[in-house]
Amino acid sequence: MAGNTFGQIFKITTFGESHGEAIGVIVDGCPAQLPVDIDYIQAELDKRKPGQSKITTQRKESDTVKILSGVFEGKTTGTPIAMIIPNEDQRSKDYGHNVDVFRPSHADYTYFTKYGIRDHRGGGRSSARETAARVAAGALAKLFLKAKGIEIVAHVSSVGKIDAPNVSIANVQEFIDEREKNIVRCADPATAEEMIAFIDGVRKDGDTVGGKVSCYVKGVPVGLGEPVFDKLHADLGKAMLSINAVHGFEFGSGFSGSEMRGSEHNDIFVKNHLGNVETVTNFSGGIQGGISNGMPIEFRVAFKPVATIMHNQATINSAGDAAEISGKGRHDPCVVPRAVPIVEAMAALVLADQLLRNRASVL
Amino acid sequence: MAGNTFGQIFKITTFGESHGEAIGVIVDGCPAQLPVDIDYIQAELDKRKPGQSKITTQRKESDTVKILSGVFEGKTTGTPIAMIIPNEDQRSKDYGHNVDVFRPSHADYTYFTKYGIRDHRGGGRSSARETAARVAAGALAKLFLKAKGIEIVAHVSSVGKIDAPNVSIANVQEFIDEREKNIVRCADPATAEEMIAFIDGVRKDGDTVGGKVSCYVKGVPVGLGEPVFDKLHADLGKAMLSINAVHGFEFGSGFSGSEMRGSEHNDIFVKNHLGNVETVTNFSGGIQGGISNGMPIEFRVAFKPVATIMHNQATINSAGDAAEISGKGRHDPCVVPRAVPIVEAMAALVLADQLLRNRASVL
Amino acid sequence: MAGNTFGQIFKITTFGESHGEAIGVIVDGCPAQLPVDIDYIQAELDKRKPGQSKITTQRKESDTVKILSGVFEGKTTGTPIAMIIPNEDQRSKDYGHNVDVFRPSHADYTYFTKYGIRDHRGGGRSSARETAARVAAGALAKLFLKAKGIEIVAHVSSVGKIDAPNVSIANVQEFIDEREKNIVRCADPATAEEMIAFIDGVRKDGDTVGGKVSCYVKGVPVGLGEPVFDKLHADLGKAMLSINAVHGFEFGSGFSGSEMRGSEHNDIFVKNHLGNVETVTNFSGGIQGGISNGMPIEFRVAFKPVATIMHNQATINSAGDAAEISGKGRHDPCVVPRAVPIVEAMAALVLADQLLRNRASVL
Amino acid sequence: MAGNTFGQIFKITTFGESHGEAIGVIVDGCPAQLPVDIDYIQAELDKRKPGQSKITTQRKESDTVKILSGVFEGKTTGTPIAMIIPNEDQRSKDYGHNVDVFRPSHADYTYFTKYGIRDHRGGGRSSARETAARVAAGALAKLFLKAKGIEIVAHVSSVGKIDAPNVSIANVQEFIDEREKNIVRCADPATAEEMIAFIDGVRKDGDTVGGKVSCYVKGVPVGLGEPVFDKLHADLGKAMLSINAVHGFEFGSGFSGSEMRGSEHNDIFVKNHLGNVETVTNFSGGIQGGISNGMPIEFRVAFKPVATIMHNQATINSAGDAAEISGKGRHDPCVVPRAVPIVEAMAALVLADQLLRNRASVL
Repeated sequence: MAGNTFGQIFKITTFGESHGEAIGVIVDGCPAQLPVDIDYIQAELDKRKPGQSKITTQRKESDTVKILSGVFEGKTTGTPIAMIIPNEDQRSKDYGHNVDVFRPSHADYTYFTKYGIRDHRGGGRSSARETAARVAAGALAKLFLKAKGIEIVAHVSSVGKIDAPNVSIANVQEFIDEREKNIVRCADPATAEEMIAFIDGVRKDGDTVGGKVSCYVKGVPVGLGEPVFDKLHADLGKAMLSINAVHGFEFGSGFSGSEMRGSEHNDIFVKNHLGNVETVTNFSGGIQGGISNGMPIEFRVAFKPVATIMHNQATINSAGDAAEISGKGRHDPCVVPRAVPIVEAMAALVLADQLLRNRASVL
Repeated sequence: MAGNTFGQIFKITTFGESHGEAIGVIVDGCPAQLPVDIDYIQAELDKRKPGQSKITTQRKESDTVKILSGVFEGKTTGTPIAMIIPNEDQRSKDYGHNVDVFRPSHADYTYFTKYGIRDHRGGGRSSARETAARVAAGALAKLFLKAKGIEIVAHVSSVGKIDAPNVSIANVQEFIDEREKNIVRCADPATAEEMIAFIDGVRKDGDTVGGKVSCYVKGVPVGLGEPVFDKLHADLGKAMLSINAVHGFEFGSGFSGSEMRGSEHNDIFVKNHLGNVETVTNFSGGIQGGISNGMPIEFRVAFKPVATIMHNQATINSAGDAAEISGKGRHDPCVVPRAVPIVEAMAALVLADQLLRNRASVL
Repeated sequence: MAGNTFGQIFKITTFGESHGEAIGVIVDGCPAQLPVDIDYIQAELDKRKPGQSKITTQRKESDTVKILSGVFEGKTTGTPIAMIIPNEDQRSKDYGHNVDVFRPSHADYTYFTKYGIRDHRGGGRSSARETAARVAAGALAKLFLKAKGIEIVAHVSSVGKIDAPNVSIANVQEFIDEREKNIVRCADPATAEEMIAFIDGVRKDGDTVGGKVSCYVKGVPVGLGEPVFDKLHADLGKAMLSINAVHGFEFGSGFSGSEMRGSEHNDIFVKNHLGNVETVTNFSGGIQGGISNGMPIEFRVAFKPVATIMHNQATINSAGDAAEISGKGRHDPCVVPRAVPIVEAMAALVLADQLLRNRASVL
Repeated sequence: MAGNTFGQIFKITTFGESHGEAIGVIVDGCPAQLPVDIDYIQAELDKRKPGQSKITTQRKESDTVKILSGVFEGKTTGTPIAMIIPNEDQRSKDYGHNVDVFRPSHADYTYFTKYGIRDHRGGGRSSARETAARVAAGALAKLFLKAKGIEIVAHVSSVGKIDAPNVSIANVQEFIDEREKNIVRCADPATAEEMIAFIDGVRKDGDTVGGKVSCYVKGVPVGLGEPVFDKLHADLGKAMLSINAVHGFEFGSGFSGSEMRGSEHNDIFVKNHLGNVETVTNFSGGIQGGISNGMPIEFRVAFKPVATIMHNQATINSAGDAAEISGKGRHDPCVVPRAVPIVEAMAALVLADQLLRNRASVL
């Protein structure tokens, strides 16, 4: 039973392989009357696309999105919105050598064994190219959330062992502007420089390295999240873990919270000068009992290093015989700069879905 | 749109509040002809129940489970299996003082604001008591998995800053036996002693502390997991994050994998002496491209410290006025020993569901 | 993949067999703050229960319902509501002769072949006893709908070839009162008498006969229904066809509409004296394009004759050898009087679900 | 919560409006390794397309389908299969007069009121054009079913009050050949002539008329159907009722079965000369207890007359003021000849889904 649909109400279904004709998505359940800014959607895609800098893969795709349905005179009609992105720069011959060998730590072996067949070109459906469709859908979700006063922003907070200090999200636009000034998408300029130099070195080694993306959501109303299984942070975790190369998710105090005492960790409720409920600290990351409490949501996503490296590696073929694989094709030395819009998109999909689900909570 | 159902095929729906009549679950989609060992289910529940040791809450519940349907002459019929666990030791007057104040870092405020009403007694539906129903259902899933050669085992790997070394899972029964010899459920005896002493001290301080549970799954066939959204590790992550007090999930190399290079991180395929495909290392944690590759699955779950402490805390009431809460009732100084069977149960539910979903993969 | 859950938002899952301990249901997604009238729920169950008259089965069950969760101080909390109905009058020995023969036109053969095992006592899960759980859940849905001004009423419109004339639903309470005055639940007294006499004769023949139930929904707002697949009448059709013994569903002009011309069939829009949109005729049965248009919804459900008759019948056993079955046990000569509350309950579940789904339609 | 997805495992999501860029579908969950015959899919679409004869609408569309993903070297990969059909012959100016009036018995009023916005051109999403996407997906399902020995065939059994006699399905190909020889798709040649003459007369009157489609499924294994809510006939009923203009569904003995006695209606089990279980009669329509019993499945679908007629009709506009609508555009005098492939497609989708669901029934 395939799993290519995400969401219960704001529901997306994606399709497409790395070297197929096109990739795309149907968004069902987007509420009617939302103005659709196609330039905004394209701009989000541009942040994800390959060939954007020296520290990302050199595959050239314009990732030009086209809307085929569900929008009339610039607004959503409440009917399904199909968006399609043609593939332009497939270099399938680059993968000719891959037909019968399994690249280490890729999905070749598992897809082939599960389905008995695989599209080997460019990783087929397992390629991160598929995430372009998610970014398109997520952009639509972000437009909906903006209309409701909810903002989502993420940045690269770690590359390898290089960690950025916390950066204030008091002014979201400034945060984004600072982040977009550098090609690694870190909102702290000094750390960004260090990261870029490091990644460039890794690239020259023909190697790859992992990193972390931190994400923040502001303006969340109280009440989003559906216990006991569809808690807001559980949905966020599933969304993030479904992104290629993700190996970990934490929110609020995260893994380090497990080392703390309750007397240190509890967030005390107060009413602020505007009469709104706040907490003095926010180890809860904006979510308590699986439901948003109005404080900013904060979470972090850990990405492993991309598996394709420019070194020869030992492996096996489909008969189980020893074989060798040499790194070919075009790949990212570090995926996290391009992952920032994907993380934001997945967060937007979760928040949009939960916002709509919450409308059914009370008589 | 409430979220009290988990799973697509092996699907459970739970009900019940901390101080209500009973808690329970309906398991739909359990395949027919599975022999049901009620004693096994009860034994799993016994590992979760309160009042089991000096380092857990002193609420006394027998957590006696009863099967009401779906089993005939000792085997599942393919029809829904309802299991019910009566509540025995509700002490609702302990919560009389809670009617109108919001306990810090609990779900009181969020539930009240979301629904406009809340059952304040014992935390209502937000209480971890609800997890007993999950353990009952998970036990059934474990019986199904055992019949298919799949074993799940977890233990407490951290309490506060005390970390256990890795313990071999080569012999699962020995691991379990070692773990069950101590009340903190850590399979390393020396660390267990240290943990127990530490928790006892925390308890005397009227405080609480967090910890981590590590879980392993052996005997997984290749092919479980449904990309792109229902990847095996994404489903596991959502399952774990839905457990009370969880703030983080990681699998395989986890967060530290983000600091590694691809040349270090890649798991090389080989064929072993039995002719089966293996990987030399297992940073993938048994999952590649979201699909199991046959290697043991490994993941870790981080629990924050329980929010109820035996100290007075400042807070607000429903009118927003300042109030004070004194710690009353019966609570856990450290929840992770009782979380071990819950983690195993949720893992079993995911694996059972994915095992059945995979039957539809090929013509 | 079992199918014991109905609904997307107002979602019910039922359990229980005819001769098991109990039957019951979990209702998830009922909005919070709805006052729950347990006497109302019991009264609805009383209309369905066996042993209610000489023209229904003589099995004696009180069908006493108990709520185990989800209600606090008389109102729904937004958490799952579990309701349980113990079985009292199982006479399993009546079915001793059934262990290995397949009753004609029952589900014995199909269940046994599908699952490889079956609970033969009283028909197990395939027994109509299961519908008591639906009536309990549907009663809760009806309370929700009443709070929103929506009323559902049904009656027996045909028994065998005896058809009642149309009865006005201008005053719903009068319709119900008239219907409840007779044991066949037909709102036209003259036809009711004819039907009762006929059924009594059929009963004395040891035979059974079918019939039809007509159902009406008043006060429906415009906009319920989710094209293109979850159209309101499609959801109603599935709901009705899931009831035991149902072989047909039609709404509005139904099957006879297929014989009409567009010039006769079209419902012309007008604005009435209150300023509300109406149609001059209502061949649409209150639904256009799968969405309610504010006119009363009307549909009819056809029930085949119950398969258990008090005659000997030829059949086969599980080895395929010829066998004979003699009618034993307690059965209905005509099921439709007891089906009226089930039809209303299923309609209520569909309407409640669609009402909540519609909250997500617009920005 | 929109309803543009159908199926649980073999799951389709459609998109597209009558006058938008394109219509299409994503099929998720089609098992891997199925050979895909694109010519077969196109041939199925050709049976549905407009402009095919004098008794259907004169809109000219080639309905040329293109597969964008999920197929590699001619076989399904287990990944989502996207199929797209461009719109060619939109004549939006034909609908210019419709912007602010509600056509009687169409979906204009309900869509506009539900969403607050509607694409008026050609009926937007409510147009039957959307069914082309279903036929494409259903063709894929039919290929899967053929590989499993299951055949589906339908024909027009009634137009207005003209009913065809039963036609044997002993030889499916002959049935189809006979049906395709005439433009009304009735497998009885004499009745077909009568029907065509009648429809032509209705067309000249500028009017429309309804009809019925009868459908048969052969080669169904025992065991398909998921009680209690997803019974096979309940899923079929929902599928058929979701098709534009459908007002009724019945299977087996249908509505006339409600007039019969159990002693007449029961289907007696026997073992035939091949050793297979059969029933002497088939009033059950091949389904008992909601599960297929191996006998041919038979059902009938009733279509109301299309609402667009070439007469002036009174109506209202969005302000509620009286208005007039004159019939313009291109329309079908009788939709049922084009509905035959749609009915077959929906039946195929249900059967394919249930076939896959049944794989999870037993240990």
